[in-house]
Amino acid sequence: MTNLGIGLIGYAFMGAAHSQAWRSAPRFFDLPLDPAMTVLCGRNADAVQAAAGKLGWQETETDWRKLLTRDDVQVIDVCTPGDSHAEIAIAALEAGKHVLCEKPLANTVAEAEAMAAAASQASAKGVRSMVGFTYRRVPAIALARQLVAEGKLGTIRHVRAQYLQDWIADPEAPLSWRLDKEKAGSGALGDIGAHIIDLTQFITGDNIAEVSGQLETFVKERPVAASEHTGLSGTAGTERGPVTVDDAAVFLARFASGALGVFEATRFATGRKNAIRIEINGSAGSLAFDFEDMNVLHYYDAAEDSRTAGFRRILATEPTHPYVEAWWPPGHLLGYEHGFTHQVVDLVTAIAEGTDPAPSFADGLRVQRVLAAVEASSTSRQWQEIPA
Amino acid sequence: MTNLGIGLIGYAFMGAAHSQAWRSAPRFFDLPLDPAMTVLCGRNADAVQAAAGKLGWQETETDWRKLLTRDDVQVIDVCTPGDSHAEIAIAALEAGKHVLCEKPLANTVAEAEAMAAAASQASAKGVRSMVGFTYRRVPAIALARQLVAEGKLGTIRHVRAQYLQDWIADPEAPLSWRLDKEKAGSGALGDIGAHIIDLTQFITGDNIAEVSGQLETFVKERPVAASEHTGLSGTAGTERGPVTVDDAAVFLARFASGALGVFEATRFATGRKNAIRIEINGSAGSLAFDFEDMNVLHYYDAAEDSRTAGFRRILATEPTHPYVEAWWPPGHLLGYEHGFTHQVVDLVTAIAEGTDPAPSFADGLRVQRVLAAVEASSTSRQWQEIPA
Amino acid sequence: MTNLGIGLIGYAFMGAAHSQAWRSAPRFFDLPLDPAMTVLCGRNADAVQAAAGKLGWQETETDWRKLLTRDDVQVIDVCTPGDSHAEIAIAALEAGKHVLCEKPLANTVAEAEAMAAAASQASAKGVRSMVGFTYRRVPAIALARQLVAEGKLGTIRHVRAQYLQDWIADPEAPLSWRLDKEKAGSGALGDIGAHIIDLTQFITGDNIAEVSGQLETFVKERPVAASEHTGLSGTAGTERGPVTVDDAAVFLARFASGALGVFEATRFATGRKNAIRIEINGSAGSLAFDFEDMNVLHYYDAAEDSRTAGFRRILATEPTHPYVEAWWPPGHLLGYEHGFTHQVVDLVTAIAEGTDPAPSFADGLRVQRVLAAVEASSTSRQWQEIPA
Amino acid sequence: MTNLGIGLIGYAFMGAAHSQAWRSAPRFFDLPLDPAMTVLCGRNADAVQAAAGKLGWQETETDWRKLLTRDDVQVIDVCTPGDSHAEIAIAALEAGKHVLCEKPLANTVAEAEAMAAAASQASAKGVRSMVGFTYRRVPAIALARQLVAEGKLGTIRHVRAQYLQDWIADPEAPLSWRLDKEKAGSGALGDIGAHIIDLTQFITGDNIAEVSGQLETFVKERPVAASEHTGLSGTAGTERGPVTVDDAAVFLARFASGALGVFEATRFATGRKNAIRIEINGSAGSLAFDFEDMNVLHYYDAAEDSRTAGFRRILATEPTHPYVEAWWPPGHLLGYEHGFTHQVVDLVTAIAEGTDPAPSFADGLRVQRVLAAVEASSTSRQWQEIPA
Repeated sequence: MTNLGIGLIGYAFMGAAHSQAWRSAPRFFDLPLDPAMTVLCGRNADAVQAAAGKLGWQETETDWRKLLTRDDVQVIDVCTPGDSHAEIAIAALEAGKHVLCEKPLANTVAEAEAMAAAASQASAKGVRSMVGFTYRRVPAIALARQLVAEGKLGTIRHVRAQYLQDWIADPEAPLSWRLDKEKAGSGALGDIGAHIIDLTQFITGDNIAEVSGQLETFVKERPVAASEHTGLSGTAGTERGPVTVDDAAVFLARFASGALGVFEATRFATGRKNAIRIEINGSAGSLAFDFEDMNVLHYYDAAEDSRTAGFRRILATEPTHPYVEAWWPPGHLLGYEHGFTHQVVDLVTAIAEGTDPAPSFADGLRVQRVLAAVEASSTSRQWQEIPA
Repeated sequence: MTNLGIGLIGYAFMGAAHSQAWRSAPRFFDLPLDPAMTVLCGRNADAVQAAAGKLGWQETETDWRKLLTRDDVQVIDVCTPGDSHAEIAIAALEAGKHVLCEKPLANTVAEAEAMAAAASQASAKGVRSMVGFTYRRVPAIALARQLVAEGKLGTIRHVRAQYLQDWIADPEAPLSWRLDKEKAGSGALGDIGAHIIDLTQFITGDNIAEVSGQLETFVKERPVAASEHTGLSGTAGTERGPVTVDDAAVFLARFASGALGVFEATRFATGRKNAIRIEINGSAGSLAFDFEDMNVLHYYDAAEDSRTAGFRRILATEPTHPYVEAWWPPGHLLGYEHGFTHQVVDLVTAIAEGTDPAPSFADGLRVQRVLAAVEASSTSRQWQEIPA
Repeated sequence: MTNLGIGLIGYAFMGAAHSQAWRSAPRFFDLPLDPAMTVLCGRNADAVQAAAGKLGWQETETDWRKLLTRDDVQVIDVCTPGDSHAEIAIAALEAGKHVLCEKPLANTVAEAEAMAAAASQASAKGVRSMVGFTYRRVPAIALARQLVAEGKLGTIRHVRAQYLQDWIADPEAPLSWRLDKEKAGSGALGDIGAHIIDLTQFITGDNIAEVSGQLETFVKERPVAASEHTGLSGTAGTERGPVTVDDAAVFLARFASGALGVFEATRFATGRKNAIRIEINGSAGSLAFDFEDMNVLHYYDAAEDSRTAGFRRILATEPTHPYVEAWWPPGHLLGYEHGFTHQVVDLVTAIAEGTDPAPSFADGLRVQRVLAAVEASSTSRQWQEIPA
Repeated sequence: MTNLGIGLIGYAFMGAAHSQAWRSAPRFFDLPLDPAMTVLCGRNADAVQAAAGKLGWQETETDWRKLLTRDDVQVIDVCTPGDSHAEIAIAALEAGKHVLCEKPLANTVAEAEAMAAAASQASAKGVRSMVGFTYRRVPAIALARQLVAEGKLGTIRHVRAQYLQDWIADPEAPLSWRLDKEKAGSGALGDIGAHIIDLTQFITGDNIAEVSGQLETFVKERPVAASEHTGLSGTAGTERGPVTVDDAAVFLARFASGALGVFEATRFATGRKNAIRIEINGSAGSLAFDFEDMNVLHYYDAAEDSRTAGFRRILATEPTHPYVEAWWPPGHLLGYEHGFTHQVVDLVTAIAEGTDPAPSFADGLRVQRVLAAVEASSTSRQWQEIPA
């Protein structure tokens, strides 16, 4: 089988998740190409060397531009903070490398537009790109999309989505790059709000047309982390610095179809760790999902006799559920990382088949426009339309 | 409308529940007879007088035999401890009074046999009797029975039933009549185990044919209650006395149809307050119920496509559900006491229609025989058959 | 004990619930006054007569003004549609009658202001008034308020509230007075949105300061009901008429303290029957409640060791929980109607003690102002402030 | 780092799970030795070759005895059906190879005794052995063990354990080696009942002292599978053959400490896919677990104030929970296969540290004795003691 050389940039949280996916995908799925964990890239030579050993990469680079010139690398996997996505992804596409880029696509609409344009041009030359909205590939979510696409919900009336975390609810939690607007672009909005925007657009097959939102930074100053840290937390020092991103974002939305949306993304929901909660109410039925019970999709069929109607707790671990047949018998649960494995499967398949994978950079741009509209609305205190 | 005079004996926990039922039933249901809360009976004149005022009874008696001679009393409602059930109920039936008797029917099989015989003779004269297995009339349970009777579960394979409480898990909880074999007959077994025996036989429409069980008294001595107390708890004194009943009872069962049963009744399940949990697995589907979420029945249809199959959380508050139409709109929950109201409705209806209500004294006897077999098995350490 | 004569106006859904409450309260609670179900009032003489018999009222009137002149009536209980609340309640207060008025307090802010003014004047003369936000008195909700008041949640960051029903999700569900702006004032917003506005303000002890909202009528025309009907549904005729109220209302809110609120009220959430879902996230802990499991409050204590921290499923049926001691042992659930009984208890107690009960007409006015601001915002497409 | 060569025998369901574990463990955990996926062994040369390519093994063998002579293999990982466990494991230990053996340890007590004896002798020479009760290493289960060991539950009163599946509830599901007593030893009892026996003994730190049980084969004849199949299902042919193992097993148990146990293992619980449900009630608290929500442990602390007491839903994804720190941030769930990875971690660590890992073959023997006692009791219809 033909090798598909991968160059991964970044080796923190997302780098580890992507590594496990590249490693596992060919062991469970029949891939048309054989991904090789060729090279890991990071700026600090010692650190990247150590990470490569740990995560199982064959070689390392400290300059991402070197990856673009290597013949043994066909895919650039971008796991850096958002401020470098555009530069790396565009250069990679122009160098003829397929690109998988972590979300959010970029830190600004302008960057995202440039990336989408580059992706479009690259596609014409057979170069593929994909943005890493990995939750689409949780089986229960992929099933949700199927049920909506099959018409089982009828006309969608309500979309209700929350992404609730609590990891900085403590005012003494230290600053990290994720609280720095320069690096991260925004806070809860872009980091986790982006996921529920993408997920609800994906599941409904519809786009958000306008929003009215509000951002909030509850804790405006925090301890500076004592040392540079790549993960989600760190040790607090004595100095304090400003939080330049939002702690929470809430917004109303109107979808193109007329459905009403209510969205909330926060890092201050004490007790909620990674609660991606999505509910869709349609004229013919409803769906409900919570990532804290990620193998389950709740489905209500409004056509049922009222005597036996009720939300069904579908344990999405059957061979008939998306991606599941490759794994374990029914009732043997999948975890967080499996979504990344499925992402690799779909990307490699698209590359082999010469088709554009989803979610595309255009999808990422669409999310970026919603994020920008929420920010604008938070300032203007009015509804903001999202350009089609 | 013709009056139906009620004489209630006992005014503690069960007396209060029955009073609320007699009071509420005609306000929500169209009854063929008009129950009158005529007379409340208790041995202590002052106490019964106070209770009658509180619970809304017109008159009082201190000798239950007086009730049997009153023309304005047509129904004797027996809410005393189990050791007096047989004497009162048999006398009442012989006096031509309809009888509603709290469960367990009696403290011994011999008593229960005499009661069932008396009920049978009374029935021939148009005098009705009923034993108070009130949980049958929780809408979700009544719905469960309907679904099984309609064949929706196919062949029953497994019955799993637990009645879990924790009110004497504390070894310093004082003695009460419920811990005294003379008064109560048995402990967890007869008090709460009786309910799950009746419920599973009711829902499956099948009888337990044999059992292998084990009784246990974890705490063998307790403080004597400082004062006589009618409720479930009391204040501990310094003296100690023996616990003469079981704290917990577990048993395996074989139903006549071949289904396997696993039963557990305990007052030592810390954190479980009134968890009546029943699960039935059949070849065509399954049911699950927990009284701590008593308005809900979970139903699994094995014929569903595996993509959308799952336990349905049926909120049994629809007009199509048993007893519900008389109450509130969907989603407006019923509580514990409503089962007693439904019991009154069915009893009054049967009296008016001249039919024998269920559960009959014969049903109560059947439960008593299972209780006795569990006790015998606990001693013999062998399986015990239940006479048909 | 002194009698407290009640005059109830209206005998549909709310009338039945209030009747059960007046009947039950003295049987379980020690009330300082003895409520008498003196007179039921409705415009149709035959219908009100029948209802009085059914619901247990001694006499009837067809003109509510007559109630105000009766010496045997001390409390006017207003269960009519919202368009008559102001007239009746103000007249009753001026006549020296205590008033319990169903929610929403009125159909307009102007009416509510007049009512609050009348209530204030009446209070000076010892005449009491209360608005029927009965869900405050569900034990789990009352417990939620206690926990917040005790500081267990710290600084409130997020309020998330939904009231989800589905009874008109079917476009062929017929018109009723609840879909008529003249009668009902508004649709989902005032009928059910009012509850979650009141509940969140009650639980947090804080007021909503500004809102940005959106109303929607998904189905703009419906069959005219074949006959006048008092309940929630009816039979459709062939004629069609316009729906003049909202089917759904969504809004963002900012509380005075700075907490962010997200609200949603809809009659189009298929599969949700009466899902009042409230979540509060504070710096020190969180709460979650769903009326479809109304005896339960979920509580997260952020100070717990992370090894054993988790949302606690508090079954609010302990004697230490508000209102519960009067009822059944732990684990024996209460239902929808018990909130009304507790409302009666608190009202009668306040009347006897000469204090103003809560929620007051001023509380009702505050809710009304939020409703009006949501409506205004839906038109202006901007945030609207709520006058203090 | 020193290599640790692994030889895996068997490549069906368990082989795939073990392969993923050997592959993943060093990528997330700091192991003291570096496991090498050296050789995969199976009888069919072509099939094992294909499997090795798929699962990522360097070489293959068709005769397991060859593995014992290879210097590059230090660990024999036995994933064959139970009838070959004893022969392979004993020979491997005698050859100085560490052994990881899938559960149940053997098909008979005699085999298990021989294996435990061999393990004991091997241990004296520094050769390690472990039986694959992998569910012990689900973080929520490992946490449960910790909480009990810390005394948080007080005196254990009740153990309630069910392992519910439904994959042969359909009478037309074909025969497989798992339904053949020669290969599998027993049915639900040994396949899944063994897990809950081990888990409850592990969590409580106590042993089952006696049992009273019942086995049942509901469907006594099934279609013969059309072709040899390695997985859980297959295609039915026209021929029929006898089912020689139990479909379900139920038993009561008495633990050495006096706690009462109730156990149930079945493949006929329609709608339950892999529901390992364990509840422990102690004098000071309770635990509840369900593998269908495997990242969650429910914990009740009986010392809590009754106002705020309730089962806590602990999402066992915190860094303070066993094994979790190596993985993802809180709320990012783990799946079925992670237990196998943790098993590898503990085995490799024990080998490096020169200690005996748990669960030992002696632990496996203890489970085997319980299985045998249940079988004996099913025939004798009496309680059976388990030799200490």
